[in-house]
Amino acid sequence: MNRITMAHGSGGAVTQELIRTVFQKHLANKYLNKMDDAAVLTGSSYPLVMTTDSFVVTPLFFPGGDIGKLAVFGTVNDLWMMGGQPLYLTAAFILEEGLSMKTLEEAVSSLGQAARDVGIQVVAGDTKVVEGKGGLYINTTGLGQLCYSQVIGSAQAKPGDSVIVSGPLGNHHASILSSRLGIKNYIQSDCAYLGDMVKGLLEAGLEVHVLRDVTRGGLATVLNEIAKSSRVNIQVSEELIPVDPEVLGFCEILGLDPLYMANEGKFVCIVPEKDTAKALSMIKQHAHGAGAVVLGKVFNSLQGHQVTCQTKYGGEKIIDILYGEGLPRIC
Amino acid sequence: MNRITMAHGSGGAVTQELIRTVFQKHLANKYLNKMDDAAVLTGSSYPLVMTTDSFVVTPLFFPGGDIGKLAVFGTVNDLWMMGGQPLYLTAAFILEEGLSMKTLEEAVSSLGQAARDVGIQVVAGDTKVVEGKGGLYINTTGLGQLCYSQVIGSAQAKPGDSVIVSGPLGNHHASILSSRLGIKNYIQSDCAYLGDMVKGLLEAGLEVHVLRDVTRGGLATVLNEIAKSSRVNIQVSEELIPVDPEVLGFCEILGLDPLYMANEGKFVCIVPEKDTAKALSMIKQHAHGAGAVVLGKVFNSLQGHQVTCQTKYGGEKIIDILYGEGLPRIC
Repeated sequence: MNRITMAHGSGGAVTQELIRTVFQKHLANKYLNKMDDAAVLTGSSYPLVMTTDSFVVTPLFFPGGDIGKLAVFGTVNDLWMMGGQPLYLTAAFILEEGLSMKTLEEAVSSLGQAARDVGIQVVAGDTKVVEGKGGLYINTTGLGQLCYSQVIGSAQAKPGDSVIVSGPLGNHHASILSSRLGIKNYIQSDCAYLGDMVKGLLEAGLEVHVLRDVTRGGLATVLNEIAKSSRVNIQVSEELIPVDPEVLGFCEILGLDPLYMANEGKFVCIVPEKDTAKALSMIKQHAHGAGAVVLGKVFNSLQGHQVTCQTKYGGEKIIDILYGEGLPRIC
Repeated sequence: MNRITMAHGSGGAVTQELIRTVFQKHLANKYLNKMDDAAVLTGSSYPLVMTTDSFVVTPLFFPGGDIGKLAVFGTVNDLWMMGGQPLYLTAAFILEEGLSMKTLEEAVSSLGQAARDVGIQVVAGDTKVVEGKGGLYINTTGLGQLCYSQVIGSAQAKPGDSVIVSGPLGNHHASILSSRLGIKNYIQSDCAYLGDMVKGLLEAGLEVHVLRDVTRGGLATVLNEIAKSSRVNIQVSEELIPVDPEVLGFCEILGLDPLYMANEGKFVCIVPEKDTAKALSMIKQHAHGAGAVVLGKVFNSLQGHQVTCQTKYGGEKIIDILYGEGLPRIC
């Protein structure tokens, strides 16, 4: 492809190809190459964790959240996925000409409130204005401190480990799509701060191998990235995949697969068998983790490093990463 | 104003009003309120410096630089302006649909080369795609380490101090404008890394009070911000303001004032009288500081906190901050 298309922003196969052929080619280093949610800065004398994310979601306000809340929770969640306790946030705003001042102020106010809720300070900011149609983009970069000694990362899944997902899938994606299509329903984005749940697991001393928040590309893409990085197979059970009834109905009508749908308040947690029951019960104690389930297992793999799904009818199918466009501008 | 206009991105009075009425209102804290080029994170146990900047310049490539180079030098320079030795950089790319893959790769390649030149690693990245006309925006966030004990900041100018500017003004602005208007000339952007010069001053133990890079809004705006923060008056001499002859000619034809034009490789350095000669001579030893001059002085002020200019004809005029639009999308 000679030009950028919306598919390059899907978080799936086309995004990965772009990252490999352009970004890794020119920027490769030991931090970027890991492709984790955040970089653990081992080279410095300080155990820091750093991550950056731009938020380009449309509409800016949607049931269950808005771009400001997303910009705080999304980045802070990424820090937690590497075991990083959030310290500081920067926020850079790109405003399109024509953006209503009221809309901007509502988004900034929501961002400020989310930062206070999470207990993180916005220490640096930037504002630019570009031509356009009244849109708003926000970049947040988070700095955290590594507080726990265990090594967490996409490459740490071990055969025999359990795969836990913290709740039902697809709510954010379905909420955004409903807003765009003008479909009236009660589906809300799951946009949420995951820090309390992760902190609980780490402080309890559980042996957590992998933490990943399940955003663009959905669970299928995240599990494939883990399988590849850890050089293992992952098997999930179709009937255990949690989906809210209203989201399931929405998906059936529109032909969507919740496995590929974006979430903004769900994470995958991979732990050894021995810690599975305790991890699950701890996650389920939180409001945002009440629907958590163990939905699969990690297996040894000499080649392939696949994600497979046991269907309701006893068959098995390969779950690949997202191809094509997915729903663009989801986060 | 009910809607965002290009003037909100000028870096001048309208930008400051937007920051005050929207961003400071909802995000105010001791770091953001200082309005320095970067935040010194005194609250942590680590002496860190952090800054964020989005780059939205058009055209993406211009004589003397490009968006990739700008995205590294701009952010790293901001760290140095607070005395921060750069440690790590994050880079987040927002790609507009239709952007040529070749253009993107050239920009990313240039960013990678600039990072290597400066000796900083890009430790985290992000890519999003939005609708549009093939544009590209880059956010970089820099993390540095405070290596020097002296307190540097916009509020540190003292009566009697000298105001040094590191070279001729307006080249970046004139280069961008020439590109946009299709005017053929030899003007190049001054896009440059300022770290070597600043490091030299700090390592030599000079008493540096203020360092500011002179970007959006130009020298007039930067000096006004310093005068206000430090509660002093600043007086500069019109005939000492350095401007390259070709830039001066360009400005005269188009009615532009170099004092309000953006630069990408110039900084203001405010030092006590006793260190002025040494600071000037050290800056002039560098290729990017060869045109440095002492162009003014800091005076005591009980009220007003103004910047004034002694004209060539013996008069005195007030130099205000930039009003209105300036040249948008300059950085």
